[in-house]
Amino acid sequence: MAFDDLQFPMPVPDPNRPGETKDTFENVVGGSATYASFAAACYAPVRIVAVVGDDFPKATLEQLAKRQIDTTGIEQATGLTFRWKGRYRPDMVGRDTLDTQLNVFADFRPKLPDSYRDTEVVLLGNIHPALQLEVLDQVSSPQLVIADTMNFWISGEAETLAALLKRIDVLVINDEEARLLSGIHNIPHAAKDILARGPKKLIIKRGEYGSLYFDDDGVFAAPALPLETVADPTGAGDSFAGGLVGYLARQGNARHQTMRHAIVHGTATASYCVQAVGTGGLANLELSAIEQRVSDVRKLYYLGESP
Amino acid sequence: MAFDDLQFPMPVPDPNRPGETKDTFENVVGGSATYASFAAACYAPVRIVAVVGDDFPKATLEQLAKRQIDTTGIEQATGLTFRWKGRYRPDMVGRDTLDTQLNVFADFRPKLPDSYRDTEVVLLGNIHPALQLEVLDQVSSPQLVIADTMNFWISGEAETLAALLKRIDVLVINDEEARLLSGIHNIPHAAKDILARGPKKLIIKRGEYGSLYFDDDGVFAAPALPLETVADPTGAGDSFAGGLVGYLARQGNARHQTMRHAIVHGTATASYCVQAVGTGGLANLELSAIEQRVSDVRKLYYLGESP
Repeated sequence: MAFDDLQFPMPVPDPNRPGETKDTFENVVGGSATYASFAAACYAPVRIVAVVGDDFPKATLEQLAKRQIDTTGIEQATGLTFRWKGRYRPDMVGRDTLDTQLNVFADFRPKLPDSYRDTEVVLLGNIHPALQLEVLDQVSSPQLVIADTMNFWISGEAETLAALLKRIDVLVINDEEARLLSGIHNIPHAAKDILARGPKKLIIKRGEYGSLYFDDDGVFAAPALPLETVADPTGAGDSFAGGLVGYLARQGNARHQTMRHAIVHGTATASYCVQAVGTGGLANLELSAIEQRVSDVRKLYYLGESP
Repeated sequence: MAFDDLQFPMPVPDPNRPGETKDTFENVVGGSATYASFAAACYAPVRIVAVVGDDFPKATLEQLAKRQIDTTGIEQATGLTFRWKGRYRPDMVGRDTLDTQLNVFADFRPKLPDSYRDTEVVLLGNIHPALQLEVLDQVSSPQLVIADTMNFWISGEAETLAALLKRIDVLVINDEEARLLSGIHNIPHAAKDILARGPKKLIIKRGEYGSLYFDDDGVFAAPALPLETVADPTGAGDSFAGGLVGYLARQGNARHQTMRHAIVHGTATASYCVQAVGTGGLANLELSAIEQRVSDVRKLYYLGESP
């Protein structure tokens, strides 16, 4: 879990002061696990594994617990919580990191409580692949494993990442990461290459353009909703993954067709995330609202019979 | 019409020598009108208006005529044909212009033959908006007018372009052009702004990501097919517009649902274009092949009932 200090190119609504806007936000509670847990909890019970420092607000932990999220796996370490400071560019997509403080995250070794070991659906957030493997080793009999990773590990920890890829069902990365991982620019060829490395299914995120999904049944393209308001893109990918994994856990299978629907649910969930600063769009989100937006996404590419 | 000199970052199949590849092609017959006409002719009879120099191959004119394309409106001028020389970057999307020779295009004033004046469906290719207006003035009673434009005219001929926008039904531009024209970065807001300037319908092309379509019925997103082979992206936008306008002419209406299908047809047609150098993928294309690929595009975002 994390604190984010965010700078935007224009004022955006302040979730703590309805009706007011500002362009700089400090101490925003974030982190992959936070976003993904809030998102997944709209669908199914969640067990979170993360580390926070002694500066982390009790109120947020209580907020998580209220949303069917088991917080037993949140380690309370001595020191400060991970902190990221970034500035978004005028396009609200590109961003520059101004500062990263690992703090208690530097020595984090995720340890699953005994009560978590029977978890069937596992989402491995973007951390060192060696730690992702350690988490997986602590789950007794995982039925579905979904993993995220990033450029930093693809370039610097290729061997460990290769070992991880052999043990996961679904890899969720963006197009640049897919190109870096495969060494292939063409996306369909890159996807084939990556699927040959272990994962049975591959989701390639393309930001505002949506995502592509590859499995042995073919390709699925899910456009993103063109949104009139984007307040804070932080957490979009994590809430996409959270919505996806939550939907799959709720359905109890990851068949071709279920995966396609899960991706649309992830898309809808992420659209709520980016419309508010921090986890403001997710923390009180209801499944009925997501389903409304799933219906909007479906309308977006409704074609019907040939006229 | 034009000659293109093309340089690619890797060898691509040579349409004139089956089985062979090369990375530099000279004297490739191209030009917006050529691509769009070959594409549209798969659907309906086409009347082309363009200018060529005395170096232009008779064989190409015969090839056009064979494809239900009326070439009466091709002006044979004294001098050389328009020529563009460009180099594609390694991503096969970005490209750098190395040389442009306007030649006979410099003094081109499109003049419609009398036999063209009753044309009902008009595609105004990307030329000076004053010339697009002149073409439109020569059509006695246009039923559907579709126009393309580009950054150069948006920045340099804003007033004339504004007059054109009031007289067209459908504007087809890319996302950067939409942002430049509206002065708005957010695409849904940019679309609203552009629709308020005249066009009833707006298609925003997003290259390999597909396109978005805006009208008073809402938004439609058409992903592009992820292609394993891209030989030459030149003409993709023109063949998209050609397929679109051809489909609309064949259907005889441009209602909401028809427009959505037309966009999918444009997407399918463009996918054939980019798989061969020059017009090699279009010149002998049959509607049945396009329909096969339309079915591939539809599978790409087939979702079916919730599992």
